[in-house]
Amino acid sequence: MLIVPEREIANLMTRDAAFDAVEGVFAAMASKDAYNFPVIREAIGHEDALYGFKGGFDKAGMTLGLKAGGYWPNNLEKHGHINHQSTIFLFDPDTGMVSAMVGGNLLTALRTAAASSVSIKHLARKDAKVMGMVGAGHQATFQLRAALEQRQFEKVIGWNYHPEMLPNIEKIANEAGLPFEAVELEGMREADVVISITSTFAPTIMADHIAPGTHIACMGTDTKGKQEVEAALLARATVFTDEVAQSISIGEAQHAVAEGLIKESDVHQLGAVINGTHKGRTSDDEITLFDGTGVGLQDLAVAASVVELAVQKGVAIEVDF
Amino acid sequence: MLIVPEREIANLMTRDAAFDAVEGVFAAMASKDAYNFPVIREAIGHEDALYGFKGGFDKAGMTLGLKAGGYWPNNLEKHGHINHQSTIFLFDPDTGMVSAMVGGNLLTALRTAAASSVSIKHLARKDAKVMGMVGAGHQATFQLRAALEQRQFEKVIGWNYHPEMLPNIEKIANEAGLPFEAVELEGMREADVVISITSTFAPTIMADHIAPGTHIACMGTDTKGKQEVEAALLARATVFTDEVAQSISIGEAQHAVAEGLIKESDVHQLGAVINGTHKGRTSDDEITLFDGTGVGLQDLAVAASVVELAVQKGVAIEVDF
Repeated sequence: MLIVPEREIANLMTRDAAFDAVEGVFAAMASKDAYNFPVIREAIGHEDALYGFKGGFDKAGMTLGLKAGGYWPNNLEKHGHINHQSTIFLFDPDTGMVSAMVGGNLLTALRTAAASSVSIKHLARKDAKVMGMVGAGHQATFQLRAALEQRQFEKVIGWNYHPEMLPNIEKIANEAGLPFEAVELEGMREADVVISITSTFAPTIMADHIAPGTHIACMGTDTKGKQEVEAALLARATVFTDEVAQSISIGEAQHAVAEGLIKESDVHQLGAVINGTHKGRTSDDEITLFDGTGVGLQDLAVAASVVELAVQKGVAIEVDF
Repeated sequence: MLIVPEREIANLMTRDAAFDAVEGVFAAMASKDAYNFPVIREAIGHEDALYGFKGGFDKAGMTLGLKAGGYWPNNLEKHGHINHQSTIFLFDPDTGMVSAMVGGNLLTALRTAAASSVSIKHLARKDAKVMGMVGAGHQATFQLRAALEQRQFEKVIGWNYHPEMLPNIEKIANEAGLPFEAVELEGMREADVVISITSTFAPTIMADHIAPGTHIACMGTDTKGKQEVEAALLARATVFTDEVAQSISIGEAQHAVAEGLIKESDVHQLGAVINGTHKGRTSDDEITLFDGTGVGLQDLAVAASVVELAVQKGVAIEVDF
C-alpha cells in the first residue's frame, strides 16, 4: 500500500487536479455511478472533539474508502496542531484491501475550494467581472484563489464580520493582479459571483444583497442550524448542490425547505449540469445558488488524484502491508 | 504513526492478550466508559462486496478509531486472498491524528474467539467437563482453542451440517489432549458448554438440545434474519450479550424479542458481570446464553494491544506521517 503524508500534499496537489477530481465525482454522483455512505459524526466526550467517518464508492473512478477525523478545538493551543485533523484511506474495490493512506488536512481545504470553483465554471455568467467574498478566514483564501481561475474577473470585493481579517483575501486578489475593495453587505449587489464561507447560525446575506444574474456559492453550512443566507434568496434562485439529501438536512437549503419556500425537488445536483442532463443557468437575470455541503466522495477523489501524482514524482511511501 | 502488517499479527498476538483486551473493553462498555458508533455497512454494487466501518471510543483505554473493510466473496477464487478483509485504524484521542494502522483479518478471528471465551470464564459452571461445538468451519477452530483454556474440559463433542468438516475441530481437541466425539444435535445435551458458530437463517439448535446448567455462546448471528438457536431457548435462559442494541436487532435475541418471548430488559451486558454489577450465573441448573454480535470496540482493543506488542518486539513499522 502507498502512503502520502500531509507534508507532501502541498508540493503535489494542484488546484487544477483538485478541480478535475471534484468535477468528475460530482458528475459520477449525478449519473448514479458514485454514492456517499451515511456520515458518522460523534461528539466523543473528550477534548470537546467531534470525530467521524465520511465514506463512499465511485464505480466510475473505482475509488472506495473514507475520510476519518474531525475537529479538536484545543489542538492549536495545547499541541500546536491545527484543529481540523483528517486522514483519507483508500481501498481496492476489487479486493477490499487497503491501498492508500493520505493526509487529509490540506486536501479538505482544496476540495472545498474546488467545489465552489466547479459551480462557478458551470453556473456563473460568462461575462462575470466582480468577485464578491463574504468571509475572510483561512478557508476563504482557498475559495478565492480557485474562484479567480474561472472567469476574467476585474475586481474583488469583500466583507467580513471582523473587518481586520480582510487583508487575508486582499492579498489573494492582489497576487492575481486584481484590486480589492472592502464593502458593506449591501455593496455585494455589485458582485457577479459571490462565495460565502462563514460559520454562523443566523443569515448574514439577505435576499436583496444579491443582484439578479449573480451566482452565489454558499460553502459554510454543513450542520443543522447553521445558515449563511436568508431563506428567501433560495426561493428566488435556482438552487444546486453537491448532494440533495445533505443540502436539505444540514446544508443551506434546510431553512428554505423547513419554511416551505422551496421543495426538495427544487434542489438540483450540480453534477447534472456537468453531465448535461440539467440545463443549468438559462438567462442573464437568473440567480444561481450552489449549496456546497461537502461529501466524502470529494475527499476520496482528491486523495486518489494525489496518490497518482505522488507515484509519478516518486514520493509515495510504499509499505508492504 | 505505527504500522503492523497482517503478516506480523500471528507472531505477536496471543490468545491471552486478546482475552484481556476483549474482557477489558466489555467491562468499559458496561460502565459507560466506552461506546460503539453506529455501524456503516454497504452493499457497494461491485464484486457482491459488503463494505463498512465499525468505530468506537474507549475513554478508559483511550482507544479511538475504526475497523474498515468487509466481505468480498470472490476474493479467494479470483485473487487468492481471503474473502473477509479488514484493516484497523487507531487515532490519538487527544489530537485526532492517526496513530496506527493494523491488519485486521486474524485479529477479527481472535477477538471473536476471545468474546466466547470471556463469556465462558464468567458464566459457565466451574465444574464444566464436556465442551460442545456446533459448527466446524475455519472460525470454529479459533473459538474452540480459546474456549478450552477456560475450564478443565475432559471431552469435546461436535456437530456440523457437513460432517466431513468435523476433523477441523477434532484436530484442535486432540492438540489439547482431549478426545473428540461426533454427535447428533440431541447429543449436545451432554455438553456443559456449547459454542455455536454457524451462518444460518433458521434455528439449528432447539431448546431441548440444551441441558439445564449449560452455558451456550451463540457467535454466528450478526445480521437481521440470521438465527442459530430456537427462540424458546432464550426464554428459558439468562441472556447476556456484548451490546444490547445489536443483540435485539441483528443478534440472536432479535427473534425472541420479535416473538415477544423476552424483552430488551431481559438482555444483559456481559461487561456488567465482569464489573460485578450483575450477579451472572446464580445456580447450577441455570442456562446462560451469550449472544456475541461483534462490536468495533473489540477490534480497537485487540489492535491497541498488538501495537503495544509490536513496539516491544521492535517489529512495528514507523512512518513519519
